[in-house]
Formats: sequence, structure tokens, C-alpha cells
Amino acid sequence: MSLENIPNTALDLETGAWMHALARTLWPIPRSLTGPGVRDSLALLAQELPGFTQHAVASGSEVLDWRVPDEWALEEAYVLDANGALIVHTRNSNLHVVGYSEPIDCTLPLETLQAHLHSLPEQPDAIPYVTSYYQRRWGICLSERQRQALKPGNYRVVIKTRHYAGELNYADCLIPGSCSEEVLLSSYICHPQMANNELSGPVLLTALGRWLQQAPRRYSYRLVLVPEMLGSIAYLHQHRSHLQRHTIAGFNLSCVGDERAYSYLPSRAENTLADRAALHTLRHLAPDFQRYRWLDRGSDESNYCAPGIDLPVASVMRSKYGAYPEYHTSLDDLDKVVTARGLAQSYRLYQHLLCGLELNRKVRTRVLGEPQLGRRGLYPSLSTKHSTRNVRGMLDLISYADGSLDLLAIAERCERPIWELAQHLPALIAQNVLEYVDE
Amino acid sequence: MSLENIPNTALDLETGAWMHALARTLWPIPRSLTGPGVRDSLALLAQELPGFTQHAVASGSEVLDWRVPDEWALEEAYVLDANGALIVHTRNSNLHVVGYSEPIDCTLPLETLQAHLHSLPEQPDAIPYVTSYYQRRWGICLSERQRQALKPGNYRVVIKTRHYAGELNYADCLIPGSCSEEVLLSSYICHPQMANNELSGPVLLTALGRWLQQAPRRYSYRLVLVPEMLGSIAYLHQHRSHLQRHTIAGFNLSCVGDERAYSYLPSRAENTLADRAALHTLRHLAPDFQRYRWLDRGSDESNYCAPGIDLPVASVMRSKYGAYPEYHTSLDDLDKVVTARGLAQSYRLYQHLLCGLELNRKVRTRVLGEPQLGRRGLYPSLSTKHSTRNVRGMLDLISYADGSLDLLAIAERCERPIWELAQHLPALIAQNVLEYVDE
Amino acid sequence: MSLENIPNTALDLETGAWMHALARTLWPIPRSLTGPGVRDSLALLAQELPGFTQHAVASGSEVLDWRVPDEWALEEAYVLDANGALIVHTRNSNLHVVGYSEPIDCTLPLETLQAHLHSLPEQPDAIPYVTSYYQRRWGICLSERQRQALKPGNYRVVIKTRHYAGELNYADCLIPGSCSEEVLLSSYICHPQMANNELSGPVLLTALGRWLQQAPRRYSYRLVLVPEMLGSIAYLHQHRSHLQRHTIAGFNLSCVGDERAYSYLPSRAENTLADRAALHTLRHLAPDFQRYRWLDRGSDESNYCAPGIDLPVASVMRSKYGAYPEYHTSLDDLDKVVTARGLAQSYRLYQHLLCGLELNRKVRTRVLGEPQLGRRGLYPSLSTKHSTRNVRGMLDLISYADGSLDLLAIAERCERPIWELAQHLPALIAQNVLEYVDE
Repeated sequence: MSLENIPNTALDLETGAWMHALARTLWPIPRSLTGPGVRDSLALLAQELPGFTQHAVASGSEVLDWRVPDEWALEEAYVLDANGALIVHTRNSNLHVVGYSEPIDCTLPLETLQAHLHSLPEQPDAIPYVTSYYQRRWGICLSERQRQALKPGNYRVVIKTRHYAGELNYADCLIPGSCSEEVLLSSYICHPQMANNELSGPVLLTALGRWLQQAPRRYSYRLVLVPEMLGSIAYLHQHRSHLQRHTIAGFNLSCVGDERAYSYLPSRAENTLADRAALHTLRHLAPDFQRYRWLDRGSDESNYCAPGIDLPVASVMRSKYGAYPEYHTSLDDLDKVVTARGLAQSYRLYQHLLCGLELNRKVRTRVLGEPQLGRRGLYPSLSTKHSTRNVRGMLDLISYADGSLDLLAIAERCERPIWELAQHLPALIAQNVLEYVDE
Repeated sequence: MSLENIPNTALDLETGAWMHALARTLWPIPRSLTGPGVRDSLALLAQELPGFTQHAVASGSEVLDWRVPDEWALEEAYVLDANGALIVHTRNSNLHVVGYSEPIDCTLPLETLQAHLHSLPEQPDAIPYVTSYYQRRWGICLSERQRQALKPGNYRVVIKTRHYAGELNYADCLIPGSCSEEVLLSSYICHPQMANNELSGPVLLTALGRWLQQAPRRYSYRLVLVPEMLGSIAYLHQHRSHLQRHTIAGFNLSCVGDERAYSYLPSRAENTLADRAALHTLRHLAPDFQRYRWLDRGSDESNYCAPGIDLPVASVMRSKYGAYPEYHTSLDDLDKVVTARGLAQSYRLYQHLLCGLELNRKVRTRVLGEPQLGRRGLYPSLSTKHSTRNVRGMLDLISYADGSLDLLAIAERCERPIWELAQHLPALIAQNVLEYVDE
Repeated sequence: MSLENIPNTALDLETGAWMHALARTLWPIPRSLTGPGVRDSLALLAQELPGFTQHAVASGSEVLDWRVPDEWALEEAYVLDANGALIVHTRNSNLHVVGYSEPIDCTLPLETLQAHLHSLPEQPDAIPYVTSYYQRRWGICLSERQRQALKPGNYRVVIKTRHYAGELNYADCLIPGSCSEEVLLSSYICHPQMANNELSGPVLLTALGRWLQQAPRRYSYRLVLVPEMLGSIAYLHQHRSHLQRHTIAGFNLSCVGDERAYSYLPSRAENTLADRAALHTLRHLAPDFQRYRWLDRGSDESNYCAPGIDLPVASVMRSKYGAYPEYHTSLDDLDKVVTARGLAQSYRLYQHLLCGLELNRKVRTRVLGEPQLGRRGLYPSLSTKHSTRNVRGMLDLISYADGSLDLLAIAERCERPIWELAQHLPALIAQNVLEYVDE
């Protein structure tokens, strides 16, 4: 990424609206851990991001400590009361069926049905999101209000699903840079009809990919879209040693579409380049961000950072999964929670974050003592009581350019964003004041 | 110590009462730095803890920078007024005579006597504890109230003591474990008739020794009972290189019998295993403990941690010596200050502390990425909004098990007590999720 | 410096008055970056400090990244109104002319003159200090009140100055000690008629030099007096490798004459011996000092600490340059801002700081375990409830004397000033308790 690509602070609401519209297109597709919904979603995203390639791992394959389960396809699921009136139907919300439910068509009295119903008494209007991937069950999710309205009597439950040997799908895209070191951007695609904790991630990943493809860049960028947890496990099963050799920093894109405060969750090691860049960016663009601990993790970073894998993967989110009221319910929607503005803000923040990584090189002064900036046209000739903030930043940068610190470390010491400090570099290098340290 | 020995949180008041009764048996014995009182006290304790062996160092022996002084024996000391009425007598309190006083039988006027009297104007009912080991003196201690009541006139002072070539006594007991690394537990026995700052330590040491002798254990435990300061110097003189080679952690048991807040005093190095285990235990069992500095030291840790000796010895106390009003006076008694409950609480705390050491091994995951706990019967098959605290603790433990951290370090990161985390280990090891790192 | 030279806390007001009088003698001399005013000032100071030697660097010489400019001499400058009435004249204040102004004699209307006038609207009674060393200009400085009183009409401006090939001057003085390691004390001499931000530094440097010359000392002391910035650059150009080899600590003496709170500005590395000694001294003598960051620097430390030079130079000041209202104006004077008392306080503080460095050696105990101070006459023979503060300090010192810590580090741990702890050293060394570690 050349310096001209440093994003300014104006919000790109056009891209925000584009991401939001893309999420709405993905909304109705019935996704789960596996199945046609994931394939269809990935195919739709590949249309927007050339280079996005879909991969498959056959059911039954062993991936690290796990085995890929059978594929699961949902045709429809519904409940009728004794009069044949429709109580719930998945055409209204895919959340109405427990993920990976077995097929069933039976009539049973309310008291027996209750054991198969899931609702949230404390959120009476929300349909909860429930799955049972590894133990065969069936179940219906509905709002507490719907549940309370059920009258005694018989109900017919129809769940048309299939389990069959198939595959687990994921997609990746490598955007090559001028060096082989990679930045990993990972998000997940496996949740049915939830907006912040699912669709915000893939659409931001896609938008960033489109931006990266056009930008001159130093690093290679690896974009990965996997079903959460098992997908990253499968990806690591196949690509672990490559990732360990090449990844300098990575980020899990999750819950990035609402307008509430930002969140940071560290990598397991807590002090990787990914953590440093994330914290630096947040301190300058969103200083009121919420800082979480590794103990608060809950997504693919659990695998990326696991002992023996140890990738430098941090998370920069808006409202963190598990920490906002609409999480894992039907209330996490594209109308009230995720907005074009929220997405555009996250887009801008990640652009700064990635630019910070691109700009982050070690610099060294070629001049002993304070340099004479005046004869280089870089200093006002009239010395008055206060130097300008700009000149001060340049002098602070030079004063720390001892070849041992990278630009992120210098920017932290200078208490300025790296993208502000970096604006001085072209002139200072051209004028023989600074040079990059070859590594 | 096997996991079954992890103490639960119920207070063992029976052992508390046993310790308190033992302290009461020791109470009347006239102890000092040397002399028959120390020997009798050690012999009495050896009856309770088989394996406690008494040792002697002859008067005049050079021990490190010191020389063992002559033995001192107190028969009795008293003061009579001109009418022959008894003013003070050591049969009421051994504190009435300055420790190591020379013998005397003389009659002298009050104004001359005053120079030999010791009292505490700010604590008018307390008899102070005063000694003069290395300069020959005689003196009488009494309460300020007694002193103020003395009328002008002649007084007869009788101090029947003897200084003679004898020995300095101490006892130790090695409780062997399955490895040769040792945990040192040291307390002192040299104070006449004071409860918290003396008898609480030896009785707790004895109770812990009885418990350790029955418990399966990894480490060997070295219990040491010495006259304070000169005793630890003599012990180091004889055993220094063995202790330096084998001691992984040590604790000075002092002032452990009252019911007030706990105190922690670090080793000189401040970050030894003893310090880490002590702080971890206190944070979870007594989070309102008082944290002292090395500058506040005042007991045998001064020798154990001295430059060139450098044993990892920390102190976990209740009210620290010098920091509670009854300290070094007759008010430090077995009725108001030291209680069976206070002793039982310290017993429980030290049991947790020692279990923490026993449990503290390095663990390493045998699984790459998050393990599938479900197929091992360790995870609920139905995923709902909130995982249980228990499963979360297990996953956190696994996520830090990279072979570089010991269990104490992992427990600190997990913000849970080591004895809680350790409960997951048998199943996780049996299920090939974790393994111990051989060292 | 031997221990007898540890300054007591009484303020040396006589030396304070001497420094203040010396500053008043220097006051009228018209100093600038170069020129006769600097030479005259240095010559005057050399009379007070034998050994102070003046050096010259010819105009046009390249010094590091800079070139020494032509010399500049001011004869006089003034402004007359249309009636020939005097508006400003440099005989009232040398600040009335912009430093390095070109000569001019012209008559021009007020509206044209305005572009050449400098004043401070927010400080209406202050004449600002303005220079233009590297771009040729002319300008007049005056108070805002004077400026507002100017009536429309013509004004005659007369500036009699000369630029000519000459030299840049500086002085240094090496006060040899018993070893070749050096302490650098640097101040600057280039400001016309300002008291705290100029004259306080040279007069304190001179007073310290006179004190050092009489004191027995371990280190050599290098006193340097340079025009600010370009002078230190020229000095480093000539002496860099010697300074890098020999300097163990250095201090820039600037703004040391007022009575307001002390200030500390770190070296670039922030943890050098100079920083440790400065912080230690300030914590004990001026605990309410203001702590600045490297980002707040603004004097010769910019060069001394620059990358590739890396001298351990910190600044201990009173009101820091740029941080007090009179800074760089005519209000920074010898009557209200700089006082004999303020100078004497800084003198005392620097004496303690330098003694701290002299006393700072590594010590090691020769005794295992707590030493018997009593038989060495260093401990009261009667043990009572409270040891004295003095004995406690001695024991704390011994307990940290493991040969790895220097006395400054031990003093920090003991929470006592190094000059208090050091008072125990002669007896402890004589009594074979401690020894110095040879380095």
C-alpha cells in the first residue's frame, strides 16, 4: 500500500451501503455448519470478490481433533396446532428450527412438545439460535411470547431435513503483495439469519478484499471464510505450516456491523504485531474501545492461537459476541443492529489498521544530532515561541529513528497515529535524513 | 499429594482445638534463646510429631557470623517491697524478668531500681518482653500500672538464673516425598509465654507435619523449629548447601493464630515459587490480606533470604509481628488473641498453599486447535447461549497449556484457584487432551 | 568526592547571592548565537572558574548536519516616529531587535512596518524573543502595549548590525578525578537578557565547577558552555567519540534559577544512570517535581541523546523552558523570576545529585546471614520493641548488598536517600561486613 492510499477520515458511506445490500442478499440463504446454504453463500460472495475460491472437505474426514459431520440440508420446518393453524414456519425465520435437527413428522400433545421447544423468557420477542451438531436431536425455536400463547392440545411438527455424506465448504483468496509475508483476514459463514454475529464479517471481508486488490501493497493478504470453529480447524488442518511460516498478523472479522463501541480481544500471546497494530489503531480512532481478555474469546481465534498453532491473530470488533443483547437471537438483524454507517466505520478502521501494518518498517537516521530541516525546506525559517505540531512530529520521529524501533513503536512513543507520522517519510528519505532498515 | 487431598473449604475446628490445647500445654514452660525450656518444649512437640529430632550446638560454637552464647536457666525472679510484700514474681509471668538477666539478690531504693525496670506507658496493663542476650544486665519487666503504684523506699530484687556452658537446641523433621526437592517449613521457639508471636507457629507446624505424614506427596517436606534468628543461623551454618540445592519453596510460620486479616511478606527476591504460591493462595482465600515489603521483615527470613544464602522463603501470617498492639507483651495471650478458629483458618490456608505447590506442574496440550470435548463426554451436547463456568475453566486451562507455563501461572491467567483448575486434569490426561511436561 | 563532602541540607545562600550577582554582571552583554557578546560572556565566566577554556569554530565550518553561520554583531537598533521621538531602543532591551536581523536604515509607513513587528497580544507588557538565524530578515520586537500605541504615519527604523565571517565560540573545562569516567555538565550561552532560560544555567555551572575543583572526587567532570543547539552540535562534531567512551552520566543545566517546582526531563533512553540519579535525588529532595517526557525536550539533550550519539543526558530544571509564562520574553528577568534563593536551592540539589553518583558503587556482604552488629559496636545491646530507624537502614542496606545492585538501586529499594545509606559504609567496610565490588 503506498502512502497515497492512506485513507482519510471521511466515511465511505457508499461502500457501507454496498456492504449492507450484500448482507441483505445473503440474509435468506439457510446456512448452517455445512450444506447447500454455505455453498450458495460462498458462491454469491465469489461473484463480488474475484479470486475467492471454494474448497470442500468430505464428510467423515478427520481434521485435527475433529471429524467432519454429515452434511445437513433444511427444506422447511413448521408447527401446526390442532386446527391446522400455522404456529411457526422456517420461511419466516430460519432460526425456528434447531440447527442439525433430525427430520420428523409427528403429532404430539403440548406437554410432550415442550421438551423440544426453545425460547428466552428474559427476551420474550426473540427467537433464540440453537444448534446440536454432534448429538442427534430435533427442536423448534420460537419467541417466549409465541410459546406462552400455545394452548393445551395436540400439535403437528414437521421438520424436513436431511443428513447425508457430503462436505464442509470454505473459501479463500490470496491477494499477493511484493513480499511473501501474509496478513490473515478470517471471518465465518455458518449462522442462519443473524446480522452482526455473522453477515457483517463476510461483507466487510469482501469489501476489504476489493480494496486490497486495487491497492499497491507490500504484504500478501490471505482472506479466509469458514464455518466457525470447525471451518478454521479444517483450514488449519490443511494449511497450518504455511500459515505458521508466513503470517505476520491476522484478524478475525466478527461482529463488525453495529454502531456501538469498538471491542478488542487479544491474541493468546497478547503482544503480537496484530495486537500492537490493533491497539494503536483503536487508541487513535476509537479511544473509548472496550478491552477484553483472552479469557473472553469465543470464535476462530481459539484455534488460530491455540498452543502449537500460535498464529498472531487478534480481534477488532464492534459489540462483541455474547456481550450485546441481540446476540444469537432473531433480534440481531439488518434493520436495527447492523447499519450501512456501522459497516462503513469498521471498513475505515480496518483500512487504517492494514495501512498501519504496511507502513510499519524500521527507520534509521542518516544524520548525527538534530538535522537542519530548514535548508531542506522542512522547517519554518522564523523561530517563534511555539513550533507547529507538524514540525514537532517530524522531529520526534527523527529522534526515535535509531534503527531498533519499528514505526508502530515510534508512533506509540510519539503519541501520534502511524499514518500521520508516515506522511513525513517520503520527504525525509528523499532528503537523506532517514532511511529504511533492510530486514 | 494426590488430588483427593485437596482440602475442601470446611474449617477443621477439631484440629484447631487440638492446636490450641497443645499451645496451652507449652505455655508455662520458661523458654528463652537457650536453656532447658527450649529442650522441654521441643521434647513435648516431638511426642506429637514422630520424626521430630532434637539437635544441639555447643555454647561457644561459631555459627556463621555469630557465637552461640552460654545457656541460660531461670529458676525464679521476684521483687519484694520493704514490707516483704510481693511486687512481681515469674510464677505469674515469665515475662517479669529480662531475658538472659544475670542473677542478683540485693536491696536497693526505688530511685536506683528504676533504671532496671521496663514498662510501657502507652499500654499500662502490659508487661513488656525484653531481652539482653549479648550484654550482661539484669532487669525486671512489669506493667506501667504496677510501676506507678511503687512507693518510695527499699526493694529486694531476687533473680535466680544461671549462665553456663551448655548448648543451643533445635529440632527438624524430614517427611520424604517421591522426589528429593524440598519444601521448607520453619518456625521458632524461644519466646516465653506469648501466644501469637511464638506458640501459634510451632503448633501449626506440628499439625501440618501430622497431615503431611499421612498424605501422598510429590515433594519432601523439611520442618524446622529453631530459636529465632540465632537458631536459623545455626541451622544454615550446618545445612546451607543442602538447603540451597533442594529447597524449591519455603515459609516462615509466625503469628498464625489470631483471627485478624492475613499478611504476606515476600522473600528478598520477591518473585520465587514461594511468593507466587503464597500470593495465589491469599488472593483466592483471603483477598483482603495485607501486603508487606521485604523492608518490613523481622524474623528468620532475614537469614534464609540473606545475600549468598538466597533461599526462596516467604511469610504468610495473620497479624504480622510488630503490627498488632499485643505484640511482644503479656497481652499476646491464648485467651484473647490466639483462638482455635484462628489456628484452624491458618491450617486450612497452609493446606491449600502446599497443595498448590504439589499441583503445580507444567502441562501441555496433545491436541492441535480446540479439542472436541463432546466426544470425550466433557462437553454438553446442546450448545446454548451460555457455556457453564466449569466447561469454560477447562477450555481456558487447555488454551494455556503450551508447555511453557506451570499450573500456577495458568491459574493466574485463568483467574481461578489452582485447586479448582486441577480438578479437570485427571479426565483431560486420561482422555489424551493434556499431558504433564517431564522436567 | 569523599563522604565528608556530602552536603547537608542547609541552604548555601551565600553562593546563591554570588550566582545572582554574576548573572547581573552578564545581563547587559548582547549575546546571540555567535558574536562578541558570547566571547565576552565566556571570558567573564572564565575569570570565575579557572580552567574554563574558550574555543572557536570558523564561520562556514561544517558541523554534523549544519554549517556555522556568519558571525553577527549588534551595535544598536531603534525606531523613531515621524516627530523623531524614540519608540524602542536596544539600550533598553536587547530583545527589541530580532536576532540576526540585517542592517537597515529606512523610513516607512506604519502599515508597512507592521509586517516587521513582533509582539504578544496575550502578554501585552512582554517584549518577545525572536530570532532568524538561517534566513535573512529584519525585525523589531516590542510589547503589545507599545505596538497598540503606534499612530498612523511614517517611522524610521535603524538597525546597526553586521554579518561577517567570524566564528562560533564555546568553552569547556575538564576537572579530572581519580578515574577517567566523566560526568558531563552542559549549559548554554546565547540568549540576550533572559534570566531563567539562560543565565541561571551558566552561573550554576560555574558555581558547581568551583565546588568540584576543591572536592576530592572519583569521576572526572566535564563542564561545557555552548550556544544552544548549534553549540552542542559543534561540540559533538569535535568530541563525540571521546564523550561516548567516557561519559557515564550527563545533565543539561537550563532554567535552574526560579523558585517554582522542579522539573525532570529524561534522556532519550529514559533509564540511564543520569535518569536514575536525577529521579532518586528529586524523589527525596523535591518530591513534588514535574515529570516531563522525551517528547517535551527542547534543548541540547536533543543532540546529546540523538540516535547514534546516545549520551546519557537528562535534565533537572526548575520551571521548564516553554512551560512558564515569562519564557522567551523580557519578563524572564533577574528581579522577579530568578532569585538568589532559587539558585541556591538548585545548587544544593545538584550537589546531592553529583554526590549520589560519586557514592554509587556496588557493594557485597562479606557475612552470610544477618551479621552480628552488636559485637562491632553498631547495634544497641538492649533489644526493645522498636529498633531505631538508623539501625534498620543499616540492616536493610546489608540485606540488599548481594553484589548485583549498585547503591542507587539499593537506596531505591530501601526507600532512603543514597547519601543517608552511604553514611553506614565506612563502619561496615571497616568492620568487614561489606566490601565494594571491583568493576
